[in-house]
Amino acid sequence: MRIVKGVGEMQNFSREQRAKGRTIGLVPTMGFLHEGHLSLVREAVKQCDCTVVSIFVNPTQFGPNEDLDSYPRDFERDKKLCEKEKVDAIFFPQEQEMYKKPLTFVEVKELSRLLCGKSRPTHFQGVTTVVAKLFNIVRPHRAYFGLKDFQQFVIIKKMVDDLNFDLELVGCPIVRERDGLAMSSRNHYLSPEERKQAVVLNRALSKAQKMFGSGEKNPRKVRKAVLDCIAATSSRVDYVEIVDSESLQPVQEIKKGNLIALAVFFGKTRLIDNRLFE
Amino acid sequence: MRIVKGVGEMQNFSREQRAKGRTIGLVPTMGFLHEGHLSLVREAVKQCDCTVVSIFVNPTQFGPNEDLDSYPRDFERDKKLCEKEKVDAIFFPQEQEMYKKPLTFVEVKELSRLLCGKSRPTHFQGVTTVVAKLFNIVRPHRAYFGLKDFQQFVIIKKMVDDLNFDLELVGCPIVRERDGLAMSSRNHYLSPEERKQAVVLNRALSKAQKMFGSGEKNPRKVRKAVLDCIAATSSRVDYVEIVDSESLQPVQEIKKGNLIALAVFFGKTRLIDNRLFE
Repeated sequence: MRIVKGVGEMQNFSREQRAKGRTIGLVPTMGFLHEGHLSLVREAVKQCDCTVVSIFVNPTQFGPNEDLDSYPRDFERDKKLCEKEKVDAIFFPQEQEMYKKPLTFVEVKELSRLLCGKSRPTHFQGVTTVVAKLFNIVRPHRAYFGLKDFQQFVIIKKMVDDLNFDLELVGCPIVRERDGLAMSSRNHYLSPEERKQAVVLNRALSKAQKMFGSGEKNPRKVRKAVLDCIAATSSRVDYVEIVDSESLQPVQEIKKGNLIALAVFFGKTRLIDNRLFE
Repeated sequence: MRIVKGVGEMQNFSREQRAKGRTIGLVPTMGFLHEGHLSLVREAVKQCDCTVVSIFVNPTQFGPNEDLDSYPRDFERDKKLCEKEKVDAIFFPQEQEMYKKPLTFVEVKELSRLLCGKSRPTHFQGVTTVVAKLFNIVRPHRAYFGLKDFQQFVIIKKMVDDLNFDLELVGCPIVRERDGLAMSSRNHYLSPEERKQAVVLNRALSKAQKMFGSGEKNPRKVRKAVLDCIAATSSRVDYVEIVDSESLQPVQEIKKGNLIALAVFFGKTRLIDNRLFE
């Protein structure tokens, strides 16, 4: 497995792979890999000749009072995990290499202002800009993203379509802990008590699905039940919304395929989760 | 010579060329080709195995009161000219194919607000977005731009660097009519009287160079002389500025390699021109 730090070296590696007719799969991550990331890696390894995992804690997608400095990092552990999964290369650039007095930003308007974008107004611009860079550096045939960050996936999909990136996006299902908590590097921040309480998110989403399954189509009623569920814990809701899964606009009546998405603070830790109604 | 209208077809064509190990040169144009464009085409044909000319009058780079509707078009003539120059393919997409409810924009901040950006605030965002799309669709090894649009070249260069596009930008010198007027599709709009007056732009720039050549380094004095020169015609100055050729910021003292750039209206027609001090 190669560890590639330079942008030029990564572009050369990709060019060589392509010249040999090998397909490239990219799994963009911020490291501190968990089973969620590894499910993406396994999918890439299965579908592509050459799998590249990028590990870069991207500063531009963090707001001024967010957790950039404390974001968990463990490159040695990540390296072992990637090796075990038969990853071909880790792209592990330094910040100075990725950002040299940058002035260029890729923005997906409207979608980036909804849901998580309301409390994190510059977040998605940071994401789309770095993902555009990674696409140009790694030149993947397929790129893999987890659907826990559902809005991120919708926004990147729109960017790929609008800017005609010649690649296929693959969205992979949320991977959960045994008790239902969606895997996230940020779970690491939770105190034991917060960790216990955080299962409420998945329970609340299941409750929403159960209500829809029993015929309830009123988003206000379902949302209310979800909020009541969460209110039983000492957490702070950022948002709970029921939206169209493409436009991310609130729906008047819940239909199959609509999305319920939420963000909730446990202490200082902001967790997100979501579910498509089925 | 192939005429390619579909984005997917163009991407396939490029993929095939690359698979054969052939280098691709892209000359992005808005059509109505003149000797300036053809000089880019000749450079591409000389340097690359496969030359693609894109012809697309990009609506998003025109402001609301600009000349989108009247912009001159003559595809049959363009086709003949390209054929004669041994172009391999013309990419000639339709607007509906290029823009499907787009929400994604590529913006190069700061640089896009200076010079032409002051009177055309959304222009460069339209340019960088469509050029990013063309780069992803045609996937050139080299892309050719004329230096009449000097600011455009600086901005696209910054975009290529910031977003890590894996290609080489080639800037080609301004091609002028016999009397010195820089070639432009917009010269077509000029009345015979305006056409005569428009030579003042190149004369004024030559005057600036002559002053610098004689030791004058004060940008205010040189600018004043240029404005005086232009004032002898019935035109309206949009701007005349002497700037650093990378940052596009005004200089306090003129040095070799600095840029003098201007935009001037003759009637309703806005012409631009520039010169590097040598």
